[in-house]
Amino acid sequence: MQAQTLKGFRDFLPTDMAPRQAMVRRIEVVFETHGFSPLQTPALEYLETLTGKYGDEGDKLLYRFTDHGDRQVALRYDLTVPLARVVAQHRAQLQLPFRRYQIAPVWRADKPQRGRYREFVQCDADICGADSALADAEVLVAGLSVLRSLGVEQAQMHLNHRDILFGILRLCNVPHHPAQIACIRAIDKLDKLTPAAVVEEIVQQADLPADQAQAVVAAFAAGWPLSHWQQQALDAADLPMQAAIERVAAVINLVTAAGLDRWLAFDCSIARGLDYYTGIIYETRLTDPKVASMGAVMSGGRYDGLIGLFGKEKIPAVGISVGLDRLFAALYELGLVRTDSAQVPIYATVLQPELAGAVLILVQGLRDHGWRAEIDTLGGKVGKQFERAAKRGARLALVLGPDEQAAGTVVVKDLRQSTQQSVAQTQLAAVVAAILRPQ
Amino acid sequence: MQAQTLKGFRDFLPTDMAPRQAMVRRIEVVFETHGFSPLQTPALEYLETLTGKYGDEGDKLLYRFTDHGDRQVALRYDLTVPLARVVAQHRAQLQLPFRRYQIAPVWRADKPQRGRYREFVQCDADICGADSALADAEVLVAGLSVLRSLGVEQAQMHLNHRDILFGILRLCNVPHHPAQIACIRAIDKLDKLTPAAVVEEIVQQADLPADQAQAVVAAFAAGWPLSHWQQQALDAADLPMQAAIERVAAVINLVTAAGLDRWLAFDCSIARGLDYYTGIIYETRLTDPKVASMGAVMSGGRYDGLIGLFGKEKIPAVGISVGLDRLFAALYELGLVRTDSAQVPIYATVLQPELAGAVLILVQGLRDHGWRAEIDTLGGKVGKQFERAAKRGARLALVLGPDEQAAGTVVVKDLRQSTQQSVAQTQLAAVVAAILRPQ
Repeated sequence: MQAQTLKGFRDFLPTDMAPRQAMVRRIEVVFETHGFSPLQTPALEYLETLTGKYGDEGDKLLYRFTDHGDRQVALRYDLTVPLARVVAQHRAQLQLPFRRYQIAPVWRADKPQRGRYREFVQCDADICGADSALADAEVLVAGLSVLRSLGVEQAQMHLNHRDILFGILRLCNVPHHPAQIACIRAIDKLDKLTPAAVVEEIVQQADLPADQAQAVVAAFAAGWPLSHWQQQALDAADLPMQAAIERVAAVINLVTAAGLDRWLAFDCSIARGLDYYTGIIYETRLTDPKVASMGAVMSGGRYDGLIGLFGKEKIPAVGISVGLDRLFAALYELGLVRTDSAQVPIYATVLQPELAGAVLILVQGLRDHGWRAEIDTLGGKVGKQFERAAKRGARLALVLGPDEQAAGTVVVKDLRQSTQQSVAQTQLAAVVAAILRPQ
Repeated sequence: MQAQTLKGFRDFLPTDMAPRQAMVRRIEVVFETHGFSPLQTPALEYLETLTGKYGDEGDKLLYRFTDHGDRQVALRYDLTVPLARVVAQHRAQLQLPFRRYQIAPVWRADKPQRGRYREFVQCDADICGADSALADAEVLVAGLSVLRSLGVEQAQMHLNHRDILFGILRLCNVPHHPAQIACIRAIDKLDKLTPAAVVEEIVQQADLPADQAQAVVAAFAAGWPLSHWQQQALDAADLPMQAAIERVAAVINLVTAAGLDRWLAFDCSIARGLDYYTGIIYETRLTDPKVASMGAVMSGGRYDGLIGLFGKEKIPAVGISVGLDRLFAALYELGLVRTDSAQVPIYATVLQPELAGAVLILVQGLRDHGWRAEIDTLGGKVGKQFERAAKRGARLALVLGPDEQAAGTVVVKDLRQSTQQSVAQTQLAAVVAAILRPQ
């Protein structure tokens, strides 16, 4: 039988998994300090819970099947739709606003390519039940704090609003919804395609004359500041657009108050693909040239209509999603990932099987002090055991012979300094601490 | 659309998820101090990777389907078979012995009943590449340390060996493998069925005469100590059984050296269902009467043949698996679970939208100090905001009015003591620490 992983799926061996896990822990701490509490939902959902929320393309990418009870089921595609289901289903037990975070894998039967996998981990924080600018700002602040806590120095969050997108299209005389949607889908590709190609796509998909398509692309690609669109919205008496601009300005003010504004910029060309967004939307890219080509590492938006699909009550919500896999790859590239965290600092040799119990007592004592310690389970020549200790990345090796055992001592060998000392067994934890965690 | 979870699947709302997660963190620390490093494998595997490893019953319970590329795939059924695949597949990158732990959900399309779900979390620690008694002991020690670290006082690990099971059957004149397997399957039910029912099952399934079946059940149910079987194995010159008994005795000696022997007992009636075990096997039950009916919370064994199925090299391995869901339920029952860990200790009110930025600055300062703090995102009357603070479990509420802001102060209200004090904003973190973390 061949040992192989499915295409688009990965094993994470300890060398990668240990720092990955450390990263997850740090993200959890940030979300928790920001008042978000952990939620967990099943990997499998009823198919109908998921379909119709992600657009046609998303529906096609669902891992779906019929289970043993003839139910149509699917693996979750993101963490937002399951959250919406949870809020509707457990409404009576939840106090609103409900702040939850969830860090979990999602599955998409997408074409695998560099940096895109069929199983990947999302780290989501959402506030359900509040439609204020402060709720919007809180999720942005949580997301930006994640980047800051991971040591990221150069990143840019691009902020927009669905009603600014539609407002600009109205200003460009694209009043019909299908054409607007087609334009937004094309505009979303401005960072990947040439402006000419985007114009072409608008002509094709939105059925607009070339000069109008050109005007649309020009409007979005010009990089106008928020104040420009504010004036335009006022002049056009476009109330939804005015409200959207006010909201974006309020959010920027709050993020500024939190001291995180250097990370944030308005960008009217951000569109976001998923169908369920209704308010602010954002995407975050790393700007260090080494990793700038990587695409969005953190994105999200407001989705006031989604929870209502699952229950009677319409409950507004806003959330942010950190893409763990891309962010980890980027941090790795930037040298911000420790590659030694799967190692053990202490390796106990076993010179004779009869002394294994005595070694185990010493090792257990160190473990009780919180030290990571491995005991050699193969035995044999002590030289071989030292080799294994070195391969395991250990700084210290313990050696216990019959003489040491009789004297109540143990030899602590510093594999980095090539020194060794005989210490009283009762002093072992103190000696280890002095070497591994010097004051 | 109805909001519902699939039968046998569960949502974990924060009240349950926060302590569940704390439990996972504690298990991780124990595994790591014992020298195990984290591994992650995909949720989906090739179907043929999983089939034929768990017995016919297990094969039937696999969630299997055909993916978009017409591959036969299945959701993982446990963490052991994927580990075996990983070791064979990445052999060149792994240093043996390879100690890994993995904490992850597994899926079985089993009939849901009290305490049995279709999605549940296993916490596994294994050593691959060592066939010594010390390797066996190390995984047992890690498992028992998990229980100890969670505050479990009363538990019993029942230890046995596959070759003791077969040896006893040979002593009972059951020499043929199919009859032996049928007997072992029946013996495995001694804790659920009456002895008479087990005799009946042996008569039916192993095709033995009633008196012989009775002798088999008597041999296993009598509770003989290891020394009894040692003598029997010697008398019968049964070398495999002698070796197995020596191994079990060596493991017990090592666990005794580690100071954990009060948790451990030899029990020849432990059988374990899974087909892949080859050496020691064990099951752990909680013995506190309140939770004793719960079944095994931690089990495992040695499986020296499994990795070899995936590659050319035969690599011995031994592992232990903690059932998170059952253990959590038991600890909950025993009052060892904190039910307040999803709460936030600090809740910041917002009296006027114009002051939201100033409040956010204060809150961010507290978060940077590691405090969990929520800011009110609904606004409205301060009385309502205090109510929400109380529902969130907050001990402290912050109140910032225009006067306080002008004076550079903030009011800290102790919701438990019903007292309040005005403090300088620069002193806020110190004041909060003094109340929430008194010396």
